[in-house]
Amino acid sequence: MPHIVLNSAEPGIRGLLRFRPETGRPLSELAEVLLRGPNSLTRGERELIAAYVSALNGCRYCSASHSATAAAQLPGGMALVEQVRADAGTAPVSAKLKTLLAIAAAVQQSGLDVTAGQVADARATGATDLEIHDTVLIAAVFCMFNRYVDGLATIAPDDPAVYAAGAQRLIDQGYLPPAEP
Amino acid sequence: MPHIVLNSAEPGIRGLLRFRPETGRPLSELAEVLLRGPNSLTRGERELIAAYVSALNGCRYCSASHSATAAAQLPGGMALVEQVRADAGTAPVSAKLKTLLAIAAAVQQSGLDVTAGQVADARATGATDLEIHDTVLIAAVFCMFNRYVDGLATIAPDDPAVYAAGAQRLIDQGYLPPAEP
Repeated sequence: MPHIVLNSAEPGIRGLLRFRPETGRPLSELAEVLLRGPNSLTRGERELIAAYVSALNGCRYCSASHSATAAAQLPGGMALVEQVRADAGTAPVSAKLKTLLAIAAAVQQSGLDVTAGQVADARATGATDLEIHDTVLIAAVFCMFNRYVDGLATIAPDDPAVYAAGAQRLIDQGYLPPAEP
Repeated sequence: MPHIVLNSAEPGIRGLLRFRPETGRPLSELAEVLLRGPNSLTRGERELIAAYVSALNGCRYCSASHSATAAAQLPGGMALVEQVRADAGTAPVSAKLKTLLAIAAAVQQSGLDVTAGQVADARATGATDLEIHDTVLIAAVFCMFNRYVDGLATIAPDDPAVYAAGAQRLIDQGYLPPAEP
């Protein structure tokens, strides 16, 4: 049961965005531009970074939600997402994505844990400054969303079908709330 | 030296917001509504939560910046901010703020660390659901900003006068970037 009384039965972040629309709007806009805006990282790759960090933080709602959204947009599907979550170092992703996942894992611990060597490794695989920037920001943003969702003890459904349906809605409609009538 | 090549010499978060305005805009809007928007927690109290979490995360730029901004807006000034950073449990703040700081410290570790008992303690001192919500979100948001700022190794000036001047600018002008000409 959530720690506070929300104004809907919506699970996870969705109930929080509805409870406090003043903060919900910039949070939704941030997710939209970072995970779906024009980018040399694919939407699937960005969702995979989000899913990976959320799993490292033990956030059940966010990791299930973004794993489903990544899986639906990556050729390797859920099998690949699960391999990355189990061991990103040996999962069959590109060399570039592997170095970016290593940076994301460092950020999950602390920004101070990102090393010049990790950044050099990423650059050696062809990662651009903007890709390195966006990886750090995606990882940091999910350290926020995970704490927000779990810090208020929001509901995380058990049924994987809920997350698969949510993923399809995100892919079709994005993170921005529907315009008010 | 920052891990990536920025397009300005601005320190800390400011250089990052300028480097990537697409994400900078919602991040600035989030800070503005959460730290300065209408609220039953004062601006000084909200900045104090931000400073406290940033100090717990070891983020030199953010803790100096928000300590200065909190100090300039709290009757207890920098002495109070330093007491909170040294030991929030014994610092001379209201009973309510003390319980909210305890929740913020839990969020800094993990959202899963916030207990029903901590939330009940806050409610017993008169904290509202919205105040509890905003405390969790401020703490979570600074776990993001701290990781963003340090994960890209941005510059943190040593001179306290830089942070005092930045605090006055934030108090006068807020977190939103000036409108484009």
